Amino acid sequence: MEPRRRGRPGLDLNTVLERSVELFIERGFDGTSMEDLARHLGITKSAIYHHVPSKDALLGLALDRALAGLEQAALEVRSARLSPIERLEMLVRRSVDVLVAHLPYVTLLLRVRGNSEVERDALARRRRIDRLAAGLVRDAVDAGELRPDVDPAVTARLLFGMVNSLTEWLRPGSSHSADELADAVVAAAFGGLRAA
Amino acid sequence: MEPRRRGRPGLDLNTVLERSVELFIERGFDGTSMEDLARHLGITKSAIYHHVPSKDALLGLALDRALAGLEQAALEVRSARLSPIERLEMLVRRSVDVLVAHLPYVTLLLRVRGNSEVERDALARRRRIDRLAAGLVRDAVDAGELRPDVDPAVTARLLFGMVNSLTEWLRPGSSHSADELADAVVAAAFGGLRAA
Repeated sequence: MEPRRRGRPGLDLNTVLERSVELFIERGFDGTSMEDLARHLGITKSAIYHHVPSKDALLGLALDRALAGLEQAALEVRSARLSPIERLEMLVRRSVDVLVAHLPYVTLLLRVRGNSEVERDALARRRRIDRLAAGLVRDAVDAGELRPDVDPAVTARLLFGMVNSLTEWLRPGSSHSADELADAVVAAAFGGLRAA
Repeated sequence: MEPRRRGRPGLDLNTVLERSVELFIERGFDGTSMEDLARHLGITKSAIYHHVPSKDALLGLALDRALAGLEQAALEVRSARLSPIERLEMLVRRSVDVLVAHLPYVTLLLRVRGNSEVERDALARRRRIDRLAAGLVRDAVDAGELRPDVDPAVTARLLFGMVNSLTEWLRPGSSHSADELADAVVAAAFGGLRAA
C-alpha cells in the first residue's frame, strides 16, 4: 500500500488570523497587501482566500476576537449585582483580562481609525463599551463612591487610557499576569498612588 | 514702476512641518509619499526639498519638537528642589503641558516604532525620559511617599500611559485646558478616584 501523498500541510484559519495580525500591527493594515500576507504566512494568496474573501474580512474576524471578549465582559458587568464603583472596578479588571488574553487583537482594535466599513463597525461596538464605562463613572460619582471633583467623561477616558496603554509595552508571554496588572491599575486609579 | 511680480507665496518650514504631520498621523509615516505630501500641501516636491533633504528629515524635525519640550521638562524636573513625589507630579504636569501644546508632534512621537535611524534616535531620547520617570517612582517609594505595594516599573508605565492616552481623544482647540487635564491625571493617579 502506498503512503498517501501529502502536500505542505495547510494553515488553519486561526493560524492565518494570528500571523496576519502580527503583520498588520508591524506594518499597519493599509500598508499590508495580500501578497505581503501570503509571503509572511508562507502560503499562496489563494490559500488565504480559501479561508476569507478579503483582507477586510480578515480584519473583521481579528477585531471581533477583541470585541467579543470586551462585550462579554460588558454584559456581565451590566448584570452584576454590585455598586457602581464595584462594577467599574469589575469592568477594569475584565478589560485587562481580555487585553492580556487577546493582546494582538486588542492592540489592533485600538489602532482602528474608521477607514472602512469594517473599521467603522468595530469603532461603533467599541464606543458602546466606552459609553458603559462613562456611565458607570457618572453613577459612581452620583452614588458618592467616586470623588465629586472629577469630570466623569475625562475620568473614564483616563482610566481606560491607562488600561489600554498596557498594549504599548506588554509582550506576549510577559512575566506579568493579568491579575497582577489589573491590581496595579486598580491600585493606581482607585486607591491612588500616594502613601496613606 | 511695475509692481513686482509675485508667484504663489511659498510655505514656510513651520507650515510644511505642521501640515505634513497631519498627513503622517492620518496615513502613517511609511504610508505617506513625498507626492502625497506635495499634493496635501498644494506645492511641488521641489518646494518641499527647498526646506528639507528628505521625508526622514521632516520626521526628524517633527519628532524633535515633541522631544525638545519633554527634555526641557525633564531637565527642570531633575534640578527642582522637591521631594521625589513632587518631582514626579511636576513631570506629569509638564508632560501634559507639552502634549497639549504640541499635540500632533507628541502623537506622532508615540507612534514611532524604530523603523529607521531617525525613529531609533527618537526612541532612544524618549527612553531617557521614561527612565527618569521610573527612577522618580522608585525614589518616591523608597522615600515612603508612594505606596510600597506597587511595582515601580509598572507604575511608571501606567502613569505615563494615562498621560499619553490623552493623544487618543484630545483634539486641537479642545475645551479642556492643559491645567484641567493635568489636575485630572494627578487626581486620578496620585489621590485615587475613590471618595475619601
